[in-house]
Amino acid sequence: MNTGRGSSVEAANQAVFDALCAARPVLRGVARAIDVIPGYTPDLVLHAGPPIAWERMAPAMQAAIDGALVFEGRVGDLDAARRLAASERMRYAPAHTHQSTGAMAGVIVASMPVFVVEDEVSGVRAFAPVNEGLGKALRFGANGPEVLKRLVWIRDVFSPLLNDAIQLRGPIDLKGMVAEALRRGDECHNRNKAATTLFFREIAPSLVETGAPHAALAEAMRFIIGNDHFFLSLSMAHAKAVTLAMERIGKGSVVTTMAGNGREVGIRVSGGGGRWFSAPAEVAQVRLFEGHTIGDATPTMGDSYVTEAIGLGGFALAAAPAIAEFIGGNVADLIARSARMRRIAVGEHQTFRIPALDFQGVPSGIDVRKVRATGLAPIVNTGVASSRPGAGQIGAGVQSLPLACFAAAADALAVETA
Amino acid sequence: MNTGRGSSVEAANQAVFDALCAARPVLRGVARAIDVIPGYTPDLVLHAGPPIAWERMAPAMQAAIDGALVFEGRVGDLDAARRLAASERMRYAPAHTHQSTGAMAGVIVASMPVFVVEDEVSGVRAFAPVNEGLGKALRFGANGPEVLKRLVWIRDVFSPLLNDAIQLRGPIDLKGMVAEALRRGDECHNRNKAATTLFFREIAPSLVETGAPHAALAEAMRFIIGNDHFFLSLSMAHAKAVTLAMERIGKGSVVTTMAGNGREVGIRVSGGGGRWFSAPAEVAQVRLFEGHTIGDATPTMGDSYVTEAIGLGGFALAAAPAIAEFIGGNVADLIARSARMRRIAVGEHQTFRIPALDFQGVPSGIDVRKVRATGLAPIVNTGVASSRPGAGQIGAGVQSLPLACFAAAADALAVETA
Repeated sequence: MNTGRGSSVEAANQAVFDALCAARPVLRGVARAIDVIPGYTPDLVLHAGPPIAWERMAPAMQAAIDGALVFEGRVGDLDAARRLAASERMRYAPAHTHQSTGAMAGVIVASMPVFVVEDEVSGVRAFAPVNEGLGKALRFGANGPEVLKRLVWIRDVFSPLLNDAIQLRGPIDLKGMVAEALRRGDECHNRNKAATTLFFREIAPSLVETGAPHAALAEAMRFIIGNDHFFLSLSMAHAKAVTLAMERIGKGSVVTTMAGNGREVGIRVSGGGGRWFSAPAEVAQVRLFEGHTIGDATPTMGDSYVTEAIGLGGFALAAAPAIAEFIGGNVADLIARSARMRRIAVGEHQTFRIPALDFQGVPSGIDVRKVRATGLAPIVNTGVASSRPGAGQIGAGVQSLPLACFAAAADALAVETA
Repeated sequence: MNTGRGSSVEAANQAVFDALCAARPVLRGVARAIDVIPGYTPDLVLHAGPPIAWERMAPAMQAAIDGALVFEGRVGDLDAARRLAASERMRYAPAHTHQSTGAMAGVIVASMPVFVVEDEVSGVRAFAPVNEGLGKALRFGANGPEVLKRLVWIRDVFSPLLNDAIQLRGPIDLKGMVAEALRRGDECHNRNKAATTLFFREIAPSLVETGAPHAALAEAMRFIIGNDHFFLSLSMAHAKAVTLAMERIGKGSVVTTMAGNGREVGIRVSGGGGRWFSAPAEVAQVRLFEGHTIGDATPTMGDSYVTEAIGLGGFALAAAPAIAEFIGGNVADLIARSARMRRIAVGEHQTFRIPALDFQGVPSGIDVRKVRATGLAPIVNTGVASSRPGAGQIGAGVQSLPLACFAAAADALAVETA
């Protein structure tokens, strides 16, 4: 593990932190995964979290894959999809290892449209699928006809129109949008209301200028504004672009990936050369929607914790007290939990600032050495998927990730720099 | 002054406060003043603040009237406008006495488009002109060709299109929009960024569904989103509708109007039967934009303090710490000043709540008796117009209104209920 010794770890971490703050991701377009993600092949399925064999995947993830293969048109129904998914004909890999992130199950297949985000400083590109909306959605393991029909519309109608608008307008500054959304009460993980509205405000005139029929324009607009989490995919692709820029430093003990596959939580570190440090995933002790019990919950799953890796989400709760409306809990306590994250962060973000704290920067860049020294695990905002295939989201809240991942990474670092 | 005696003042104030919280203003359309404001005649000019003769008006207000008369097509140039304005042929009245409010100079003439807002509970209607944008604008006394050209476009092109969209969509819930904007960092007086974006999000699909040409739609959209204060007019008409509902109670010592004409600040009280209590206007000690000095400033002018009368603006600063970016000052101090307003308020608003304060309601309903007893004058967020005609806005900040208005109202109340 290439973290460097003693004071050189500090220097490396500072360089990683500087890359984190300096990155300037912009949205360049929407395109099919196979057309833009480097090395994509038709048999490749990406999933959330660290590597996992198909057999061991959580039921919600397997169900999402079934749905994705029907959506893709490779099979006619979910039973056939299950057989294909389990066969040697499909390949699986973490989205994170292909410059991508997917929320919850995080399933990406070849024809799925993904946002193309590019860091203007480093030139690295990152990708994330268009968010489908809350409730019954593929990322929560729902795979019924209405879910697949919406995915096809997103691919064949919505995404081409949105891409036309982006090309007309030119690259969209996502960093500025995240910064402004923090000033408007979002933390850009579980609360994306202001960011979604900002994105809509930015793209709406250009959508009109594509000259598409009025009815198609209104439908596309209503799809964006009808989903308060539309921006989540953009926030994730933005954060992934930032962490890819951080990884280019190739040294240090700063977390660049935190993700769950429903069985394990895995992290990667700036000096870790792509190595995963994993621990068993736990069920988040969070607010469940009415009619659900903890027994229904899938343990930690999803790539969206990439937002916490750059100081958003759980680390930026102080910017988003209204999130208590969505996830429950006492506001002051939520803010205090978030403030404690300063103890494990490399620094305060230079651009992402919280007005109510006199424009203090959010704690950014998680140092695994500080996590081990304090025993304080990073908190993340999260959604919870049902463990029953096809049932969708059943809760949301704040959870601590398993300390063991961070301790393992810190130990590996200590051994290798000893 | 019909405030009632002893405990009956308390009961009256509670009824006024209940009306304040219960009101549900919705946006019904945009129309020319003469077509919707009751009793409007072609020779009537409305202005901000308490009554004032033309001769005594501040230079910025006179300049705005000159521009408005040219815009109206009654005269060909500003010189002719000045002669007409000074003649017996024009009549002047406070906008507030015609169910209307105007920001800064607050000038309304017959053909000027105004938002039509209606309280669904009481049925009262309130009006405010469409906001033109920052900088050189009629309300700040600017009256050059580009200002008048924009006003004509707003009247002849923009407002009819916007009205079509509102009629297609149906009434727009402004109360809900204000409540959500408070959750997104606005105080809905000097910060209207989130509210403007929320309004845009609400109206954009309906604009498209009017079927207007794509270029006209894009132009109208860019006008709305190009002005972070677009919502201010809606916030003012919303607040005016609420205060009209409060005035219907006809009793009590709760402020229903606070406004300046550049010479005097005047207030009215729920039990005051329309009577004004005035004191000399002062120059706000606020942040001036670069290149301006306090000698250039017009003393307190405008009707926008109607927002503070219902608990927004200065009373809701705790919701909007990012406003420090616009008006300067230490965030914690701004919030503390705002929190002190609880001492002079009748209660906490039931719908307008601040997430960061564990969803505490904003202090709402100013009791002039409490102002006199505490010596604490209401604070308001404000813009500052240049005293040089045509120069426009030169600053913005927080100021206290003159204590004397409130003391005079409280004294009148004490005498009449003794």
